[in-house]
Amino acid sequence: MTIREEQVLDRIARARGRRARLREDAVTLAHGSGGKATRTLVDAVFREAFGNPLLDRLDDSARFAVNGADLAFTTDSYVVSPLFFPGGDIGDLAVNGTVNDLAVAGATPLHLSAGFILEEGFPVASLRRITASMSAAAEAAGVDIVAGDTKVVERGKADGCYINTAGVGVVHSPPTGELSPGDAVLVTGPIGEHGVTIMLARGDLDIEADLASDTAPLNCLLADLAARCRGGVRRMRDATRGGVATVLNELAADAGLAVVVDEDAIPVHPAVRGACELLGIDPLYVACEGRAVVVVAPERADAALEALHAHPLGTGAAVIGHVRDDPPGTVLLKTAFGGTRIIDVLVGDPLPRIC
Amino acid sequence: MTIREEQVLDRIARARGRRARLREDAVTLAHGSGGKATRTLVDAVFREAFGNPLLDRLDDSARFAVNGADLAFTTDSYVVSPLFFPGGDIGDLAVNGTVNDLAVAGATPLHLSAGFILEEGFPVASLRRITASMSAAAEAAGVDIVAGDTKVVERGKADGCYINTAGVGVVHSPPTGELSPGDAVLVTGPIGEHGVTIMLARGDLDIEADLASDTAPLNCLLADLAARCRGGVRRMRDATRGGVATVLNELAADAGLAVVVDEDAIPVHPAVRGACELLGIDPLYVACEGRAVVVVAPERADAALEALHAHPLGTGAAVIGHVRDDPPGTVLLKTAFGGTRIIDVLVGDPLPRIC
Repeated sequence: MTIREEQVLDRIARARGRRARLREDAVTLAHGSGGKATRTLVDAVFREAFGNPLLDRLDDSARFAVNGADLAFTTDSYVVSPLFFPGGDIGDLAVNGTVNDLAVAGATPLHLSAGFILEEGFPVASLRRITASMSAAAEAAGVDIVAGDTKVVERGKADGCYINTAGVGVVHSPPTGELSPGDAVLVTGPIGEHGVTIMLARGDLDIEADLASDTAPLNCLLADLAARCRGGVRRMRDATRGGVATVLNELAADAGLAVVVDEDAIPVHPAVRGACELLGIDPLYVACEGRAVVVVAPERADAALEALHAHPLGTGAAVIGHVRDDPPGTVLLKTAFGGTRIIDVLVGDPLPRIC
Repeated sequence: MTIREEQVLDRIARARGRRARLREDAVTLAHGSGGKATRTLVDAVFREAFGNPLLDRLDDSARFAVNGADLAFTTDSYVVSPLFFPGGDIGDLAVNGTVNDLAVAGATPLHLSAGFILEEGFPVASLRRITASMSAAAEAAGVDIVAGDTKVVERGKADGCYINTAGVGVVHSPPTGELSPGDAVLVTGPIGEHGVTIMLARGDLDIEADLASDTAPLNCLLADLAARCRGGVRRMRDATRGGVATVLNELAADAGLAVVVDEDAIPVHPAVRGACELLGIDPLYVACEGRAVVVVAPERADAALEALHAHPLGTGAAVIGHVRDDPPGTVLLKTAFGGTRIIDVLVGDPLPRIC
């Protein structure tokens, strides 16, 4: 380790505070939120048990070489409720989610596995609808589902259908991984549409809105971006559980730098904004399933935006902020009224089982 | 396709009967048994939707090349009940199961992913016990857990903890894949110990027996075997759900040949035999989690047995039968009393949630 690396690690440690300690004796819904409680559980239980350099990076995908092939590998389980919602279902969500975890690693997704846990009594017609949706999503993303598994549990031991997907991809243009002051921070489209769609689909709110989940495969969009930015892509993350706010916090903490975001610049659909106001939730914390946060070198910001705007899934892309030195490990929001406030990671879980 | 290949396919089709049609409108526990109902669900729903040459092979692992690297990729979900049992728990079961699916493809397991679905209220102490067990199993098998995911569902929407593992390995000595009349059929050790252990751990039977699950990583054992058999390994399968009987039926059907097994030659622990007699179950249908069925060329049978006996996990290995021409797609058992009966695939599910 070089002295510079030690300094960086030290800054990260300071930015993150002391290693997370798990206070709870039992798992809570917040531990599945993707926010602070999830991070604590991951640190205190999973990294404690499995710790290795690949896992410790906590990237969306693990990256390793096998006989000269530069591979990315990732997994996610899906427990979304309801199973079917405007714009998608658990099936295309499960395919797109794993495709996107590979895509943000700068990889071309190749092959997916699919593990089903089904509740006894689950309608075969629903299962067929889900597998048809997975098949269409796989075709759209250019991947094959090559391995699978099915388990069935008794009534009352699951909620219809849970799906795990894992994926293998080949890395073509990995982000450099290092943020620098001045870097531009972009989102590839309007945020929070998936999360609000799920919330409305549950019927908990008496709102009707013309909204659909943003679930989509980002591999082609992000490959176009990488090609146009010619080595200028620093990091990419898909903004799922915990939303854009949580991703930005992780980027800031990892880099030991600050991310400053302009509230006015963040693209948010009016219906998402309206629902979030009613619920007292900031759209920055609401999950997307087809949007990525991208950090690029300052001189590539225009090229990045052009590349995103040229793709159907990136027409709503925007530069929402930039990286700066201080305060390290912090995300600041410049509000529409000229103020500034700190955006922390998600605490608790306002929207369980969003994916 | 050559004429010979067409003939082979035609034999397989005849052996298997017409393509399975799913009669049920809802998923039943039998669909998770690993037997006939599972095969029907896989054929009628999953292969129908996802069909591609890699998946259609229905091997334990999918095999593909990436930039010159010859890879194997597999997944399994684990819903075993109870979570802890003599000889293991859901954690080492989940690691060993995926390690073994790679090992029987002739691959060295490299990297695993782990996806957890936790029920709200699940004790953190139990989760730590499970992750410690996974970590120990990963170390024993020489693999790293490099990617993970955690979801939490509400109370009553899971049964404590479900785990999915997926794995990537590099293929070193793939079985040839083709069975021939005269080939020897071996098991790497006594059968059915995992399944009976789970059954006893549930307390459904008022039996005490000094039995433990056979869960174990088979990668080193099977690599030794491959090295000693020098190209003479035809096929390897781990005998999990559906047991040895179901594996033998799949081998016979795939090859369009018959497998003849000597009942006397099958190694079965007396306690397994006793429990199976009480339950009216044939040990051939009871799941193992650390035993493989191996088919080798006739002239390699002795070398195979020596290689297995030389390894601590193969001391109970035995030649249990051989391959012959007729009747195609059929498994025959020569009983201890000199009779012969057909061993079909598992129908129904005598032991749900065995893994």
